[in-house]
Amino acid sequence: MFSIDVYKERRDKLKKAVGHGLILFLGNEEVGMNYRDNTYHFRQDSSFLYFFGLDKPGLAALINIDEDIEIIIGNEPTIDDIVWMGTQPSLTEIAAQTGINKVAESNSLGILIKKSLSSGQAVHYLPPYRSDAVIKLSDILEIPNTKVKEGASVILIKAVIAQRAYKSALEVTEIDKAVNISNEMHLAAIRYSKENVTEKYVAGIVEGLALSAGGTIAYPVIYTVNGQTLHNHPTNDTLKKGQLILCDCGAETAMHYAGDLTRTFPVDQKFTSLQKEVYEIVLKAEQAAANSLRPGIRFLDIHKLACEHLVDGLKQLGLMKGDVKDAVSEGAHTLFFQCGLGHMMGLDVHDMEDLGEQFVGYSEGMVKSKEFGLKSLRLGRELEAGFVLTVEPGLYFIPELMDMWQAQGKLKDFINYDKLAAFRNFGGARVEENFLITESGYQLLGEPLIKAVSDIEGLNRL
Amino acid sequence: MFSIDVYKERRDKLKKAVGHGLILFLGNEEVGMNYRDNTYHFRQDSSFLYFFGLDKPGLAALINIDEDIEIIIGNEPTIDDIVWMGTQPSLTEIAAQTGINKVAESNSLGILIKKSLSSGQAVHYLPPYRSDAVIKLSDILEIPNTKVKEGASVILIKAVIAQRAYKSALEVTEIDKAVNISNEMHLAAIRYSKENVTEKYVAGIVEGLALSAGGTIAYPVIYTVNGQTLHNHPTNDTLKKGQLILCDCGAETAMHYAGDLTRTFPVDQKFTSLQKEVYEIVLKAEQAAANSLRPGIRFLDIHKLACEHLVDGLKQLGLMKGDVKDAVSEGAHTLFFQCGLGHMMGLDVHDMEDLGEQFVGYSEGMVKSKEFGLKSLRLGRELEAGFVLTVEPGLYFIPELMDMWQAQGKLKDFINYDKLAAFRNFGGARVEENFLITESGYQLLGEPLIKAVSDIEGLNRL
Repeated sequence: MFSIDVYKERRDKLKKAVGHGLILFLGNEEVGMNYRDNTYHFRQDSSFLYFFGLDKPGLAALINIDEDIEIIIGNEPTIDDIVWMGTQPSLTEIAAQTGINKVAESNSLGILIKKSLSSGQAVHYLPPYRSDAVIKLSDILEIPNTKVKEGASVILIKAVIAQRAYKSALEVTEIDKAVNISNEMHLAAIRYSKENVTEKYVAGIVEGLALSAGGTIAYPVIYTVNGQTLHNHPTNDTLKKGQLILCDCGAETAMHYAGDLTRTFPVDQKFTSLQKEVYEIVLKAEQAAANSLRPGIRFLDIHKLACEHLVDGLKQLGLMKGDVKDAVSEGAHTLFFQCGLGHMMGLDVHDMEDLGEQFVGYSEGMVKSKEFGLKSLRLGRELEAGFVLTVEPGLYFIPELMDMWQAQGKLKDFINYDKLAAFRNFGGARVEENFLITESGYQLLGEPLIKAVSDIEGLNRL
Repeated sequence: MFSIDVYKERRDKLKKAVGHGLILFLGNEEVGMNYRDNTYHFRQDSSFLYFFGLDKPGLAALINIDEDIEIIIGNEPTIDDIVWMGTQPSLTEIAAQTGINKVAESNSLGILIKKSLSSGQAVHYLPPYRSDAVIKLSDILEIPNTKVKEGASVILIKAVIAQRAYKSALEVTEIDKAVNISNEMHLAAIRYSKENVTEKYVAGIVEGLALSAGGTIAYPVIYTVNGQTLHNHPTNDTLKKGQLILCDCGAETAMHYAGDLTRTFPVDQKFTSLQKEVYEIVLKAEQAAANSLRPGIRFLDIHKLACEHLVDGLKQLGLMKGDVKDAVSEGAHTLFFQCGLGHMMGLDVHDMEDLGEQFVGYSEGMVKSKEFGLKSLRLGRELEAGFVLTVEPGLYFIPELMDMWQAQGKLKDFINYDKLAAFRNFGGARVEENFLITESGYQLLGEPLIKAVSDIEGLNRL
């Protein structure tokens, strides 16, 4: 945890922004994998962490703005809890850790809420993404499961984003730590890659490093020879000579801040000439995008700039033709780059994604596009100092999508369909780094991790 | 997956046992860690795996026994699914993998169920342990969340247990594989243990090995110097000279069968003499219990036998006194051994725990005890050939529990309370192995893993 004052200040600011009523934060619960008590690793809700710092299941928090009361809700430990889980702090001790001196037992939460509702107070809560939270809210608010999500408070959502979007120095230090652990994971990923080992073999080592460093993975490890598939999990297939590996993985620190990096490298020590050509197009787009980061520029425009660099490279490769800007504005590049250039990062790897991408990534009056490609751009808004984000262009050769477009003759003035056949089994390439927006521009987070072809080829395999 | 015939035979047997009506199996869904799309690793429901073998989220299965119809329910993949997740089989292809030729879209499940209910058919389903399943069942059965669990079918529960409790040769081979991977995890745990590394450092390596082997962990890794806490997670504390480590971890194979082993060993290369004494009491109890395994004996009686061995050892250590059998029947040993000797193992590490321990671990007419100690014995029933189970006695020195009993003067004819002080910081020791009950006795699963003091001391640290 940070110091108590950090959480108190955050809550004071939040109370001012929301103005009136009751704010209810539900902490996360344990989730059973294959039965109730065989649980996944516990992950606390990020907004709960941000405002309270308490990293334990079974908690909730109630802020009565009008009466200026804060309450931590949970259950007192029993002797059975101590036998099975070790010495446990009392609820009062837990609350004190975040500077709150009022507590209540879980079964009284419904009554507290009902009292406020009947006295005309609004109850603000964030949209739940876990089913147990839906059930809990349905129970205490006495509304059906299906009505819970739509009852979430837009005022609260906006107030939370207005704080969490700007990372403090303390937070940047944590993210820096996360990126440096992620660096170690990537170096291991490259070094352990070789013919005849399985994808899962290497991915297991990589995930183990995140755990050994004291936290966990920030998201499921992507380590695949099918890099064209954007969210691919490692398989038990063995690596083969000539294949290209895309590894997208990052650590979450013990304090739950994320790193999020991607590197692309060959199974063999050296890239083939085609792999090198494609990879360097992506690398150039990534560098150009990074160099443009600064307060005041819209990330949407940096996305477009990166797309132009990709199209430019694809033209040199013979896959695309025509005017670069026209190609991008028509969306022709989305045959090869189907997603967005990046996203906010913090306590969540896609920071605050549960609060809604429109609110997080777009400013008032700027509506997220529904078009293929742009609909996957999570961040479009004007950048501000304190934002932390990823830049991650890529080129993805998806046979099903190429076949579909070709059959439709889609945007054929920009695509050389006769040249696509050679890329059916290419896979995909992506480079991803993490940046802080500063007053004057940007700062790379973590120590620089190798990305030039010569550096990757120069790293000896184990 | 096993061959199609395996799943067909299992379903035919189930239909006969249940007799009439509709059987609804819900496969598991993805669960978001900190937002919906950042998911934990997917874990299919074990009964769904057992009867259908389909290892994918978003599926359900409906068996209409009266009309002899089997249907797989899910959604057809979209082009977006292919872009984000790669080439996807159609629902019909998925169903064919388990020998079913009828499919329906997810949104038709409620209608199918309603038709059956209105025609007077009973709908059998297993008790849900995930909140999303509760919401789904509440929706399709049109009952409140709180009524879902009590509506689960006891006929179906018993029929499922009557099949899953007896492991086939194919299943035993998979469990054997899981135990052998678990062996590698334990050897690494011992070898990487040394002064000044953190618990999480070693636990991360151990978990990485489970992933690298192609599956995952069967349950959260326990690796702790506080072995007296029964379910303890590794911390970022560093290991110190003189400490005793308890490591309880096991792999789950790619087919989701579990291994479950425990070893206890010192941070240093050598046990202290007290550590050795306590450890060897536990080891002796474990061996005595294992040697008694055979069809026809109640596991409750083997549990008692192990407890007697523990008490015998504790008397020699000076911690207990009086008649051994009396001490066990009075429950005096539960000050040091608070839990049960073992449990069934299979697709779940605590096999079928979600179906209810009374049904799984106890036969008709044999009611699970509510007493401290025995209430945690998951398995009491008469053993039969084909059962797979763990044997895991231990000695746990829990300061809070010792203080509580001492203050009450509880069972003071059996406990030498004046001798307890020396054990306040001892921690705990456990040895655990996995066995198949055979026609003639038992068989150790996996290759033998070192457990003698001399073998553990002889394994060089890294």
